[in-house]
Amino acid sequence: MSLLFKHLRIHQVFGANTDVGKTILTTALVRASAASGVPVHYLKPVSTGRMEDADDMHIERFAGAQNKMIQSACLYRFGEPVSPHLAAKLAGTESHRQLEVPSDADFLTTVSSHIRQSAASSAQNSHMYVETAGGVHSPTLSGTTQADCYRPLFLPTVLVGDANLGGISSTISAYESLLLRGYIVDLILLFRDEYYRNAEYLDPYFAERGIRLLSLERPHSRLANPRDERVEMERYYSRLVPEQKQGGIFDALGHLGSCHEKRIAELDSMPQRALNTLWWPFVQHGLVVSKADVNVIDSASHDFFSVYNGHKTNPHPETSSSMSSVPSASSSSLLEPQLDGSASWWTQALGHAKSALTLAAARAAGRYGHVMYPQAVHAPALQLAERLIHSGPGHGWASRVFFSDDGSTGMEVALKMALRAFAVRHGIVGAARKQLGVLGLRGSYHGDTIGAMDACEEGVYTCEWHQARGYWLDAPTIGNRKGRIDISLLPAIAEDAGYDHVEVGSLHEAYDVRSRLSTPLAAVYRRFVERTLKKLKENGGPTLGALVLEPLVMGAGGMIFVDPLFQRVLVDIVRGSSPLREGEWSGLPVVFDEVFVGLYRLGVRSASSILGAYPDISVHAKILTGGLVPLAATLASDSIFSTFLSENKTDALLHGHSYTAYPVGCEVANETLAIVEELAASSAWDDARMRWGAPIGEGERQTAVWSFWDPAFVSRIAALNCVSEVMALGTVLAVHIRDEAAGYQSHSAHKMLEPLNLRTDDALPSSAPGGAPFGFHYRTLGNVAYFMLSLNTPSDVVRAVEERILVTLQATDTV
Amino acid sequence: MSLLFKHLRIHQVFGANTDVGKTILTTALVRASAASGVPVHYLKPVSTGRMEDADDMHIERFAGAQNKMIQSACLYRFGEPVSPHLAAKLAGTESHRQLEVPSDADFLTTVSSHIRQSAASSAQNSHMYVETAGGVHSPTLSGTTQADCYRPLFLPTVLVGDANLGGISSTISAYESLLLRGYIVDLILLFRDEYYRNAEYLDPYFAERGIRLLSLERPHSRLANPRDERVEMERYYSRLVPEQKQGGIFDALGHLGSCHEKRIAELDSMPQRALNTLWWPFVQHGLVVSKADVNVIDSASHDFFSVYNGHKTNPHPETSSSMSSVPSASSSSLLEPQLDGSASWWTQALGHAKSALTLAAARAAGRYGHVMYPQAVHAPALQLAERLIHSGPGHGWASRVFFSDDGSTGMEVALKMALRAFAVRHGIVGAARKQLGVLGLRGSYHGDTIGAMDACEEGVYTCEWHQARGYWLDAPTIGNRKGRIDISLLPAIAEDAGYDHVEVGSLHEAYDVRSRLSTPLAAVYRRFVERTLKKLKENGGPTLGALVLEPLVMGAGGMIFVDPLFQRVLVDIVRGSSPLREGEWSGLPVVFDEVFVGLYRLGVRSASSILGAYPDISVHAKILTGGLVPLAATLASDSIFSTFLSENKTDALLHGHSYTAYPVGCEVANETLAIVEELAASSAWDDARMRWGAPIGEGERQTAVWSFWDPAFVSRIAALNCVSEVMALGTVLAVHIRDEAAGYQSHSAHKMLEPLNLRTDDALPSSAPGGAPFGFHYRTLGNVAYFMLSLNTPSDVVRAVEERILVTLQATDTV
Repeated sequence: MSLLFKHLRIHQVFGANTDVGKTILTTALVRASAASGVPVHYLKPVSTGRMEDADDMHIERFAGAQNKMIQSACLYRFGEPVSPHLAAKLAGTESHRQLEVPSDADFLTTVSSHIRQSAASSAQNSHMYVETAGGVHSPTLSGTTQADCYRPLFLPTVLVGDANLGGISSTISAYESLLLRGYIVDLILLFRDEYYRNAEYLDPYFAERGIRLLSLERPHSRLANPRDERVEMERYYSRLVPEQKQGGIFDALGHLGSCHEKRIAELDSMPQRALNTLWWPFVQHGLVVSKADVNVIDSASHDFFSVYNGHKTNPHPETSSSMSSVPSASSSSLLEPQLDGSASWWTQALGHAKSALTLAAARAAGRYGHVMYPQAVHAPALQLAERLIHSGPGHGWASRVFFSDDGSTGMEVALKMALRAFAVRHGIVGAARKQLGVLGLRGSYHGDTIGAMDACEEGVYTCEWHQARGYWLDAPTIGNRKGRIDISLLPAIAEDAGYDHVEVGSLHEAYDVRSRLSTPLAAVYRRFVERTLKKLKENGGPTLGALVLEPLVMGAGGMIFVDPLFQRVLVDIVRGSSPLREGEWSGLPVVFDEVFVGLYRLGVRSASSILGAYPDISVHAKILTGGLVPLAATLASDSIFSTFLSENKTDALLHGHSYTAYPVGCEVANETLAIVEELAASSAWDDARMRWGAPIGEGERQTAVWSFWDPAFVSRIAALNCVSEVMALGTVLAVHIRDEAAGYQSHSAHKMLEPLNLRTDDALPSSAPGGAPFGFHYRTLGNVAYFMLSLNTPSDVVRAVEERILVTLQATDTV
Repeated sequence: MSLLFKHLRIHQVFGANTDVGKTILTTALVRASAASGVPVHYLKPVSTGRMEDADDMHIERFAGAQNKMIQSACLYRFGEPVSPHLAAKLAGTESHRQLEVPSDADFLTTVSSHIRQSAASSAQNSHMYVETAGGVHSPTLSGTTQADCYRPLFLPTVLVGDANLGGISSTISAYESLLLRGYIVDLILLFRDEYYRNAEYLDPYFAERGIRLLSLERPHSRLANPRDERVEMERYYSRLVPEQKQGGIFDALGHLGSCHEKRIAELDSMPQRALNTLWWPFVQHGLVVSKADVNVIDSASHDFFSVYNGHKTNPHPETSSSMSSVPSASSSSLLEPQLDGSASWWTQALGHAKSALTLAAARAAGRYGHVMYPQAVHAPALQLAERLIHSGPGHGWASRVFFSDDGSTGMEVALKMALRAFAVRHGIVGAARKQLGVLGLRGSYHGDTIGAMDACEEGVYTCEWHQARGYWLDAPTIGNRKGRIDISLLPAIAEDAGYDHVEVGSLHEAYDVRSRLSTPLAAVYRRFVERTLKKLKENGGPTLGALVLEPLVMGAGGMIFVDPLFQRVLVDIVRGSSPLREGEWSGLPVVFDEVFVGLYRLGVRSASSILGAYPDISVHAKILTGGLVPLAATLASDSIFSTFLSENKTDALLHGHSYTAYPVGCEVANETLAIVEELAASSAWDDARMRWGAPIGEGERQTAVWSFWDPAFVSRIAALNCVSEVMALGTVLAVHIRDEAAGYQSHSAHKMLEPLNLRTDDALPSSAPGGAPFGFHYRTLGNVAYFMLSLNTPSDVVRAVEERILVTLQATDTV
């Protein structure tokens, strides 16, 4: 991940194209740095072409030879003057053996180690230049383009522009490719050309974008005689880097130095400025008062944030510990990787800043911006609606998609649909409509807008205007308790059953809802639900207008894994026993809030396939847009939709937001769902499924119960004394810490896991990109610690994360 | 705007760089099309360099000479072989006069006219190739880069890739620059090079992105003898375009043809597919059943949508009229411009698909994706918060920013803040908190989530769970009635005042709230409000916990221009008369819902400056993100914020959405606000201010009352018999159509303006980009027709829009 050192200013040098003078201008930079009396590190990670022409040789000759302060290095060298990926391939062919091409991860670790060694060896202020090969998108050894491959290191950039005919275009395009990867471009350097005058055009162009441009004298045409060429070149460099150390390249140096200092100063100022102006959601600002309490996120990549640690030199007393997050020396990076352990509030699915999603967003922004949606259609919205209905979670039952902005608004739309449909179907009019309530489970959470909250019980989250509209049942839960898969019954059910828990043979058995429908427990559940509903009616409870469920797991309520059999029984009962026309609902419409659980968060596309029951309305968000931008989709069956049809505008669903179905959101969702479905059929997933003994057949994947977390790891966690219960499904791991004072205000889980916040001081490379040791960012829900992965987290990262969790829990485990 | 003809397949040819073989490969395409027996139009809009080397000459020589089916044209020719913008400049210099360089708009109109003429002259299937100059970002004559300049025409693209060393990078970067502008890239063509093998790499790279790539034989090195060169070149073309008309370039032709057909088929299928799957907001689907009722938006640019009209060949009986939207001949474009007359639900500020916003979105997506926000900080969120507080609408009073996803959630946050703050301040606890209501104005609308709706009266928009929590006053309104600026008092006030309306000398006088505070009318307002509040209390009305206002204009309620004096009096009264410490509130906290009215929609940054009163809480959205992505900001004063501070987590504002403060949204907002503030200080705005006699001094701009709509135009509208009232402020024009049956269900305005839906058949170029005649897309609110511009709509477009509105209203005006 990102590297930023106070005393070592690093810039990577990208070229707008091949043959634009990248090596010459980098040499000038190196020479100027050295002339300023600063030790210089030059790194050419990959060099292709004849040794005598190699860039680092050029540096040696024209900068290093005269100055002992310059250290240059090349990590991979290939003789053929072609693109690195091809050079590596050809080198393999030549030597009659398959050359082992390093993976991007290994490559990054090697580059990163070299840079960190350079930083460690720099006692005083020094400079480093990392010169890439060819253009910004020239492929690295693995074939990944450089702009993508180097991205996790997030080094500030000098772009060498193109002074030739067409160079305005290639310089701007190269810049835009860097921008699409979020790079900070500090400077554009290019040759001055009096005929094409590209610099004259590009200077104001980039100034408008806040980027400094400097043009320097073009070198002479190469001379045939090597000796003459060398002399002439030396003269050229003497002009580029004059002895008086002023103007031209020295302005560039000054600018780069000031960019470096400003960046650090900016990062350093951010915690206090955040404390002064931001009002965070779900944060008691009265408890967050120290700069050290603020997580400064400078960039993100894969499953990691890159966070600033410079403000933690005086750690908050509460967070200090034997493992320190304070850099052990000034040579440590001020930025360090931090695992995004909650998948950024359950949104991440494909890793942060994934190029494919950035490009999807850019494509739609460039084509449409946002366009008015009612009674209109644009391709991204239509494709997304069709995808959700025909091959997404609506497959088999949904016919309509209604878009809104987040899970909470998506649920409000669902509630408006369900209540209206119920009222119309059952002829409820006037004031009686206002009395409709929902049936749900205790512990439900459907979002933070007031209407969504009204579909839940009163609790710490609810506000002044909250009014619990409905009735919520206690649900039996499922968990791994000391290795047993156990279903816990709450007293109301236990009393009737005569037992308070049931042990199930395996997870697969527990989630085989169809088979379990004929068990005695199913009958117990039926009796309990029917009896409760009857009592509710007799006692004058609210008229129930909808069943509203988070299938399988109630997330925000505390990662409660509900017995799926109970939810299935509930659905069957509220629908009534009379067989109905396909797609028609009777009794209550059923709403599945799949905002958290859907779209493979739990390893399956939709919880419906496991419950063996379709909803009438479902809501999707979070993973829907791959963790990039907000969007929600509320799906409905035709029989729900048709209750809104009439000739009166006022019978329509009068709900909408300004940016409803905005093209950027829809296009990002389309790209996400395409990638997600590819992953779902990948061998990496099948491997994980097999570790859990789950079936991998095409038809069985959607009912398979499995996890990205290793079953052996889960067993070891379950065996710990401090853990009362553990569950893993899909990307989710939930660990219940044994604590008498459980609940939202409990801090037991957070306290126990605190050492995870801190990066390890291991000397060994970690599995974070670039290999730096990493800390954890995680959220807890009272006494429940949970961890969430992306759908494409590499297994070595998962294993490393498991190891860290296990070690941390073991360290505090009491006998 | 976009051009799409059934019988004329058009592709623009962009080059990844100069000298990659664009002309040769275009010649091959032209030659192949002609060889297939298809008439071919070749257009080189701008050519630079020696005449004998010119691309169109090359076409003439190697394609046109042997085939009468080829027509080639060049629109602008310059002798110097440099970038077009420089060639134009040099041509001016040479001839010792300033060459008149065409503006982008004129240039586009010229190109567009030529293409439309070509289409008109094509009786049968034919092909057209538009060859650009240099690379994708090479500047056109005006200096705008080609990728941006040609964008409104939205022609499908053939990208000629780069086969040289570094060409992988330049090809991908050029593609990404096209993607950032939303272009459809149908094909990548490049030379085969056995040494660098770029095609081998790029083929699967682009296949993964759904783009076909074809590599063709490289030509020989240019021969010194022109005759030999010509013979050799002719041989080369014979190989590239073989007589058997199969393989290679003919595959490319087939592919381009199929892309063209698929695109039209896709557009043609969209209306029915939309009717089958989408559930639109605020649309009665029972009334939208014909394909012709669906607006198919293919792309958008500036203030225009590009809409498909092919499905309107059988127009819906209701919408048919003397002016027909049906193309008059098969040579008419299947896509036509349509003015986005409601600024896409009041969101647009800078025109659709503005590059600066796309790049801002891409930059943040590339750097962060989305990152977890609570207790964290990232630069885009921090910068936005600081901007809003220090130089934005929060300047002078706000200290905190809370982010959410849309205006409705922003208002729910505001309500939660206000109610809690009131309850804490006034020691209201327990059940009494649930009884708190808001004070507002009749006609208010604060968004569609249930909590935001509860802050308004019951109405057609409200749902089953709606509960009007508060009290809403009738407000006096302001309007231009037959040239008089008139304040209308509703009966309750009129009775006390002894008159039912007050004529004010001018708009400036009406909005000079400070001066009006000492008028008799102010005293009337005070008495009315105080009496009403007293009565409310005596009659056991709700405890009021906040004043919630849309300052100046109640948008969704019907574009109601409220007398600002009344709102100011209200604010003063609910705050109580006792002088308070700066920034502290007493009485009720005041919430300004500036979602619609703020951020220069009405010509000023915030309505506060006109009312002369700051709120305690304000909400901003819509323009905030420039019409690209959803985001809302709720601003609060320190005294509101501090009521949430304690040591208990449960006292915090427990509200948040998964994507709260997502970097893409914040970065787009930062870019938008920077551009908007530049516009606000621009001479274009000062010109408009001066037309209205408004002051343009630095300090006076924020209280100036003016409009982008011309005062003379507004006067002419006001004088029409069919118009009862008109108002223009900032970008908003609201026209009240005289109608007895006013209200949400009234269709009078919509019916009267229906001819605007249809493009004119004028032969003269319109002010839409490219000059095609355009229709209107607009929304009405009952009997109120409103039109909204962007903050940068060019004045020629505004004048054209005014003319169309005037003519339409005049046509149906009755005496």
